[in-house]
Amino acid sequence: MDVVEFRPTPEQYAWTFGGVPPVATVKPGTLLKLWTEDAFAGRLRTVDDLASLSLKMPDVNPQTGPFYVAGAEPGDTLAVHFVSIEPARDWAASSTIPFFGGLTGTDRTATLQPPLPERTWIYHLNSDRRTVTFAARGSEFQLELPIDPMHGTVGVAPPAREVRSSLVPDTFGGNMDTPEMRAGVTCYLGVNVEGALFSIGDGHYRQGEGESCGTAVEGAMNTTLLVELIKSGAAPAPLWPRIESDTDLMVVGSARPLEDAWRASQVAMVDWLGELLGLDRLDAYQLLTQISQCPLANVCDTNYSAVTKVAKSLLPPVRAFDGMHSYLREQAAAAS
Amino acid sequence: MDVVEFRPTPEQYAWTFGGVPPVATVKPGTLLKLWTEDAFAGRLRTVDDLASLSLKMPDVNPQTGPFYVAGAEPGDTLAVHFVSIEPARDWAASSTIPFFGGLTGTDRTATLQPPLPERTWIYHLNSDRRTVTFAARGSEFQLELPIDPMHGTVGVAPPAREVRSSLVPDTFGGNMDTPEMRAGVTCYLGVNVEGALFSIGDGHYRQGEGESCGTAVEGAMNTTLLVELIKSGAAPAPLWPRIESDTDLMVVGSARPLEDAWRASQVAMVDWLGELLGLDRLDAYQLLTQISQCPLANVCDTNYSAVTKVAKSLLPPVRAFDGMHSYLREQAAAAS
Amino acid sequence: MDVVEFRPTPEQYAWTFGGVPPVATVKPGTLLKLWTEDAFAGRLRTVDDLASLSLKMPDVNPQTGPFYVAGAEPGDTLAVHFVSIEPARDWAASSTIPFFGGLTGTDRTATLQPPLPERTWIYHLNSDRRTVTFAARGSEFQLELPIDPMHGTVGVAPPAREVRSSLVPDTFGGNMDTPEMRAGVTCYLGVNVEGALFSIGDGHYRQGEGESCGTAVEGAMNTTLLVELIKSGAAPAPLWPRIESDTDLMVVGSARPLEDAWRASQVAMVDWLGELLGLDRLDAYQLLTQISQCPLANVCDTNYSAVTKVAKSLLPPVRAFDGMHSYLREQAAAAS
Amino acid sequence: MDVVEFRPTPEQYAWTFGGVPPVATVKPGTLLKLWTEDAFAGRLRTVDDLASLSLKMPDVNPQTGPFYVAGAEPGDTLAVHFVSIEPARDWAASSTIPFFGGLTGTDRTATLQPPLPERTWIYHLNSDRRTVTFAARGSEFQLELPIDPMHGTVGVAPPAREVRSSLVPDTFGGNMDTPEMRAGVTCYLGVNVEGALFSIGDGHYRQGEGESCGTAVEGAMNTTLLVELIKSGAAPAPLWPRIESDTDLMVVGSARPLEDAWRASQVAMVDWLGELLGLDRLDAYQLLTQISQCPLANVCDTNYSAVTKVAKSLLPPVRAFDGMHSYLREQAAAAS
Repeated sequence: MDVVEFRPTPEQYAWTFGGVPPVATVKPGTLLKLWTEDAFAGRLRTVDDLASLSLKMPDVNPQTGPFYVAGAEPGDTLAVHFVSIEPARDWAASSTIPFFGGLTGTDRTATLQPPLPERTWIYHLNSDRRTVTFAARGSEFQLELPIDPMHGTVGVAPPAREVRSSLVPDTFGGNMDTPEMRAGVTCYLGVNVEGALFSIGDGHYRQGEGESCGTAVEGAMNTTLLVELIKSGAAPAPLWPRIESDTDLMVVGSARPLEDAWRASQVAMVDWLGELLGLDRLDAYQLLTQISQCPLANVCDTNYSAVTKVAKSLLPPVRAFDGMHSYLREQAAAAS
Repeated sequence: MDVVEFRPTPEQYAWTFGGVPPVATVKPGTLLKLWTEDAFAGRLRTVDDLASLSLKMPDVNPQTGPFYVAGAEPGDTLAVHFVSIEPARDWAASSTIPFFGGLTGTDRTATLQPPLPERTWIYHLNSDRRTVTFAARGSEFQLELPIDPMHGTVGVAPPAREVRSSLVPDTFGGNMDTPEMRAGVTCYLGVNVEGALFSIGDGHYRQGEGESCGTAVEGAMNTTLLVELIKSGAAPAPLWPRIESDTDLMVVGSARPLEDAWRASQVAMVDWLGELLGLDRLDAYQLLTQISQCPLANVCDTNYSAVTKVAKSLLPPVRAFDGMHSYLREQAAAAS
Repeated sequence: MDVVEFRPTPEQYAWTFGGVPPVATVKPGTLLKLWTEDAFAGRLRTVDDLASLSLKMPDVNPQTGPFYVAGAEPGDTLAVHFVSIEPARDWAASSTIPFFGGLTGTDRTATLQPPLPERTWIYHLNSDRRTVTFAARGSEFQLELPIDPMHGTVGVAPPAREVRSSLVPDTFGGNMDTPEMRAGVTCYLGVNVEGALFSIGDGHYRQGEGESCGTAVEGAMNTTLLVELIKSGAAPAPLWPRIESDTDLMVVGSARPLEDAWRASQVAMVDWLGELLGLDRLDAYQLLTQISQCPLANVCDTNYSAVTKVAKSLLPPVRAFDGMHSYLREQAAAAS
Repeated sequence: MDVVEFRPTPEQYAWTFGGVPPVATVKPGTLLKLWTEDAFAGRLRTVDDLASLSLKMPDVNPQTGPFYVAGAEPGDTLAVHFVSIEPARDWAASSTIPFFGGLTGTDRTATLQPPLPERTWIYHLNSDRRTVTFAARGSEFQLELPIDPMHGTVGVAPPAREVRSSLVPDTFGGNMDTPEMRAGVTCYLGVNVEGALFSIGDGHYRQGEGESCGTAVEGAMNTTLLVELIKSGAAPAPLWPRIESDTDLMVVGSARPLEDAWRASQVAMVDWLGELLGLDRLDAYQLLTQISQCPLANVCDTNYSAVTKVAKSLLPPVRAFDGMHSYLREQAAAAS
């Protein structure tokens, strides 16, 4: 198995999906050992570092990549399997940012009210207990919370010649910010350009669904992943990102308003279920109605993201993408 | 403990929240043993019964109630504890309905496309196995699914002199359609009028989050519940319905677009956490950002409903409404 | 011509559509001379009267009516022709209201920011010049503006047994808040209950499109209108309120998000054009695309309202509702 | 006055804002005489050319440009004055496109209904009468309509390293699709990159507000414009595109849902009015509430666009951008 290790220097950070030359070319089947900087570009390190003063816009949410996957062509599907996602520091940060977040007016949901106050929280990691500690700023309250490391951002270059900020989630993946993107899952992304040009970033030591204030427990990560390629002849590329875990099938839709993010993920799941179970669209719609789980991902980014999730335990045995997830699980086990 | 049993005749069905005289007066602490008809008013009984022909609009979603709670006044909080929710028939129905549902144009999301075809599904209950069977209509596929009985609709009379169809979810509860409304939970509703005038209906043998096609596995129910009253002096009435289970605290927001349903539930949870944990609003916002679960309820009704959910296991011991849920759990246990 | 004059006492104000007994029965063809109180129920009279202190919720937006129209049955269409709408006082008021309005967080678009400051503006009427004067509160700036009197609210009792606050716009009309509802127009409303039970209120001496801050130049009105009835056999009742002026055909849709209000009004206009011009739906869609005007009505109420408007000058001669508007224009001329 | 004439070859079409090298460098004060291809890239020429067969995605909405404006730097404001916009052909086209448009499900407002039928309309221009003729496809109906030529698309390179499809409207302008962008107006755009890199395209011989079906009367154009530069020291760059005509001040906001497009344009106008009239924000909000016009632009594109418009006739004399519009009007007159 080919193994590629890569830790970008700050000059190598990618701030966009598309528009950036690859940092390396990898063959399908390669194991990548990557380091990712946090979404603040490491600029919030104490509670005195406030976002509006410390961040250097638009240099936020740096990505590690992009990687050129040999042989990937438009119409193919990229499978990115997260073998492990581990905190790379013993602290992480979160912050309110003026006119950004789910429970404040923003540049789009434009209101005349002044912004919420800025505040930064530093979470300390206890790696033995696998916890971080929330320390309130306005009182003495502290709370130890289990970590659940994930990547807010994983994506490929967009279609239609576009270059998108790494803050954006869309059909190409990107800043979906779903807690479902944890170790053990496989993310399927449609390939839009030669080489796919995928990158990852935005590690969260933990995140609630919705990412209400706009920033999770943001931290640098050491992440190991396996990359595979499914040629267009073997399966049609998914319109929206799909995630498969040992227990669930998921689709992530991203749009505004939030119901459109949900609709996109639902229609994609109707079609996925139809294909896996041999159902017509009305039957798949009906079945989904009774078994769908819908945990929100983010309600704060440029597009909102919603997850449609179906438990495999409710279904007869299904074999998505010809068993790719199981295969990658085995490869990951063999590699460790 | 006072016990009231009530099974409405069809003439006694309530089709609205508000605007209907009470069927009975009950004292706080009463155990109610109720029967509820399904949301189709029992009119879909075979796969040949199509919604547009068999339903008699607007006579859908009949409610059992309303009950006048002695002593309830505006500003108080009603606590409705679901002791048990059990299928009252050995079958249930689901259906597509023209221009109704989450994945079709509707009277509001008005498009020029023709409606989706109508189709009705009948689910057979296996009460020993506690399952229902999905039988595809366009193929031979069948799937046995565990039941998870719940009420789509629980509510009180609305404020501001309004009378609302039982199809509507809003601050007064109503047709929230969240799978979280299962046996074992306590639902807290702000009282808007003398006597509260609560009713329940819309039993679902199971339902996915979002209720995509607009109708769950709709079935008649035998439901036992305990009703209690929290006077305004003891606690402020919640603006939005709250649900407490042994494991979780929840708020249900209902609005359009979907992000507003979410925002309403989130702001209410920020305030609830703040109150329970002694946090200021920014700290509560931050904490919620990292621990919130956001399972959707419905994306098909007049208002969409979103749930914000926090696991008690992540929190220090909290005592919502002065321990009302635990108290009702004990009362329910004593009664059985 | 029958003439009915009516000026409600405060005890006679209607605060809802539906749920209120009629103040009078009128025959089709009757001329009504009505007085309407302002939406603040006359409680804001100086710049020192602040909304949160002076208003008595939910007693806002009082309606004059409802009137029972003899012979009106569900399925019929009510035609309300505004003969004149004239200021009944020499002043009017406007105000910011905490968490209400288009450019602030609200109870639904819930954010954590504090409310905007409250401020009340009093506009003085110069009846000779037909102007009101805006007087800034934070500076010396004053601006004389032409009046353009209109009614924010005109509606009938809702369908499906509902009773709705007079703050709500929906299919039954209600609080649409469009500046198009001025003297000289005919408003067509589908009848939902025996007698139609229509009422009017919410006079604005002028209002911008969108009613941004939530309150226009709110003033008491002397309004003369003609009411007519179109039986269901003669024409199908419109799903959404329609307005006809000498120059334009209009449909008002009300929903959230705003695109759904727009979609509802557009689909209704596609069908209206198709019927008037003998076009199939695709041709009517195409034609509307090139000739539609879309002035917003309100983006602040419970539902937002959008107007789709087509200039008669662009069309061949059309005869909506068998020429009802022209007929009422003539009747109004004869009456004066 | 420098004059630059440019008619792109098909190989020179720009399909994006950003990401394309300039076709020419122009000095502020230059008169540009440009030719633009229609949004279908000239591929729909008869009613038998259907969009899904004839268009070559993503090669739609070709732009003429970009032009590098000498001296333009981030923070500056570009003023583009449209001297004349004239049909360059004697026909134009419009079309339904599967799953695109305002009154159909789309890739985002994803529904399970089949697409609307495809149909193409060809409009013939009568240049003497300055009309185009709508010819129904499903009946014999024909209707002559006055032309009102405009550009759907005018924009500069986006900020934050992004490259956006020419189908997108946003802060950088782009595919706003407002009928207000006609000859005689000045469009102000904030500069995001060195040289501004502006381009124009998407000529419409006429368009209704909302561009309901997604395509206007799409035609090639001969357009003459004047370009000027306002340095950041002289005035702050506008966050959203502004348009000034002899009679009106306008701001175009673009977002989803539609209320956010509206909110963005409104808040920008509150601030513009505040600056021009010396009003604090609450007074400007109040004044705007009473004088705002809100004609929709598009409700079909990637972002929806809404216009907030204020008639100069209602205001005391104002001098936006130090009188730039008047100056350009004079320059244009001098040039002709």
